[in-house]
Amino acid sequence: MVSLNRISEICGVSLGTVSKALSGKPGVGDATRERILSVAREHNYRPNRLVHAIQRGRSMMVGVTCSQFDDEFAGNIVAGMFEALYQDHYDAMVIQWERSVQDGVRALSNLAGRRVDGILMFPPAAYPEGAYLDELRSFPNPIVVVDQTWPGCGYDLVGSQDVEGAFAATEHLIELGHRRIAHLGFLHGSTGRDRLKGFQDAMIRHGVAIHEKWLRDLQSYPSEEPYALTRELLSGPDRPTAIMAFNDEVALQALAAAADLGLSVPGDLSITGFGDLSVVRHVRPQITTVTQDPREIGRRAAKLLIKRIEEKHENQAAPAAMQDRLPARLLVRQSTGPCPTAT
Amino acid sequence: MVSLNRISEICGVSLGTVSKALSGKPGVGDATRERILSVAREHNYRPNRLVHAIQRGRSMMVGVTCSQFDDEFAGNIVAGMFEALYQDHYDAMVIQWERSVQDGVRALSNLAGRRVDGILMFPPAAYPEGAYLDELRSFPNPIVVVDQTWPGCGYDLVGSQDVEGAFAATEHLIELGHRRIAHLGFLHGSTGRDRLKGFQDAMIRHGVAIHEKWLRDLQSYPSEEPYALTRELLSGPDRPTAIMAFNDEVALQALAAAADLGLSVPGDLSITGFGDLSVVRHVRPQITTVTQDPREIGRRAAKLLIKRIEEKHENQAAPAAMQDRLPARLLVRQSTGPCPTAT
Repeated sequence: MVSLNRISEICGVSLGTVSKALSGKPGVGDATRERILSVAREHNYRPNRLVHAIQRGRSMMVGVTCSQFDDEFAGNIVAGMFEALYQDHYDAMVIQWERSVQDGVRALSNLAGRRVDGILMFPPAAYPEGAYLDELRSFPNPIVVVDQTWPGCGYDLVGSQDVEGAFAATEHLIELGHRRIAHLGFLHGSTGRDRLKGFQDAMIRHGVAIHEKWLRDLQSYPSEEPYALTRELLSGPDRPTAIMAFNDEVALQALAAAADLGLSVPGDLSITGFGDLSVVRHVRPQITTVTQDPREIGRRAAKLLIKRIEEKHENQAAPAAMQDRLPARLLVRQSTGPCPTAT
Repeated sequence: MVSLNRISEICGVSLGTVSKALSGKPGVGDATRERILSVAREHNYRPNRLVHAIQRGRSMMVGVTCSQFDDEFAGNIVAGMFEALYQDHYDAMVIQWERSVQDGVRALSNLAGRRVDGILMFPPAAYPEGAYLDELRSFPNPIVVVDQTWPGCGYDLVGSQDVEGAFAATEHLIELGHRRIAHLGFLHGSTGRDRLKGFQDAMIRHGVAIHEKWLRDLQSYPSEEPYALTRELLSGPDRPTAIMAFNDEVALQALAAAADLGLSVPGDLSITGFGDLSVVRHVRPQITTVTQDPREIGRRAAKLLIKRIEEKHENQAAPAAMQDRLPARLLVRQSTGPCPTAT
């Protein structure tokens, strides 16, 4: 790649003439313009987009903040975002944080310093507060939160119908005759709380008692905790006949724990996941789960952010925050079956 | 966040005075400077890093190109990169491409336009050529390729000891008495070709015949093809007693295919993976695999790139390209056992 200075040297014209020729402005003769464009092409000149960003007050760069990439769900959300951003000629500056407020402040401050036109937060902190929340509130451009939210968030959200999906999975277990249903949840995040709500709603709707002893809340995720908690749930004399897991990775560990205790799935125990990761198709038994569409969630989140950015640049009043939740549907596979005590 | 103009209005001083005060330059009285800094703090002013990038000829932004994020291996590589970049105060512009040359050209051109100080390519195209290769060669700053490489690459590489890891896995199968060993590879990428080489080296070293009929090359990855190919390998009258899979995800599908055919693992069939993803610990039987350290690969790749960037800014001559390959060690779990015909 060549600089403007070098093009001006090669062509023997002023820097101003080079700049005018490359940006298509008048005041340059046709022959000179042709020569400049040809040299620029030949030497692979790339316009400086940092300069454009400053001149236009618009960086065409969006900030993406993630806590992790290392699973299929998160990876597909990010892939969907990139797809939509790329289509509309936005670039992405990505910051990974791991739920540390210290990092969060620096991350947001970096994004503001780079003058990003908006931020896609996936996920946001579970409970933003203090300096981090102040930094967030002072960010002057649109923000869309993805998958997770928090009480009092106030930003647009794109995610899944977590309550409805969990309701459907629970109803499926109840219809199979299960009454002793455990819930292996992750209540630190809003999706986990919503899935617990779906579980509770279905149990109440069908008049099935919820037993505290069969409700578990993972303290750390991802971790090996789901395996340990499942062993504990299944080792007592009074064990559940079904487990509704927070997501597919938790369900996978529950399946391993059941196998290690010599329990047959679904003969002795039914298990449901959430997410429809490819891994739950590749294990035996294949896991009954709830579908999500992370790629489309990512796409829609990016499109919504771009829309908000356009609205802001047209000086439109900021619309009320919306929630766009994509369907989460039950997908029955092999890990759920009739309740053993009911048959 | 507030602009310089707004600070100058609030303080009733010129834009130049505001700029001097904020950048710590002389020519501003103490009281005025204090007042400007206080207003900037109060209104959460963030210095414009685009301006700094242009002034310094250095963006402190690195380009990261990935083809996918949606697995634990790729996610951890990217996480390792971010960790190291963050430590040294570099930001990351991330571009995801899906092996399309068209996208590759635009991606590289975007990165050049944003004036990134260097690029981490994970992975590069398997066989860069044409306009894409021209664009790549014309990029003026350092490039480090990660995990994969290509014939004639010429850039620094950080990856794994794929040949050695595959050699160890094959030797393990041979020591268990297996002679009918299939290889389920992915030869489109350099890691797949290296793993096949490790397999071949071990077979030759131990005088075990390699049968073409048991060598398979996946045409697309990721896909459901490993499941189908494994069924095919195992359905004939003349089936192998062991399968060495390109990686853990391929091994997982091989395990599912064996289960669906009623074959016991490792009783009837041994299977090895590559990568040590968490999923191979969570299935039963747990899969014997070869460890990789994607997080450390990502960290080292970013550190090496930063070193190259520093060297370039100090006008040092570019050193010869190096390969930094991290150990890949055999990890015996439950999916490999003595050859059934040998016992």
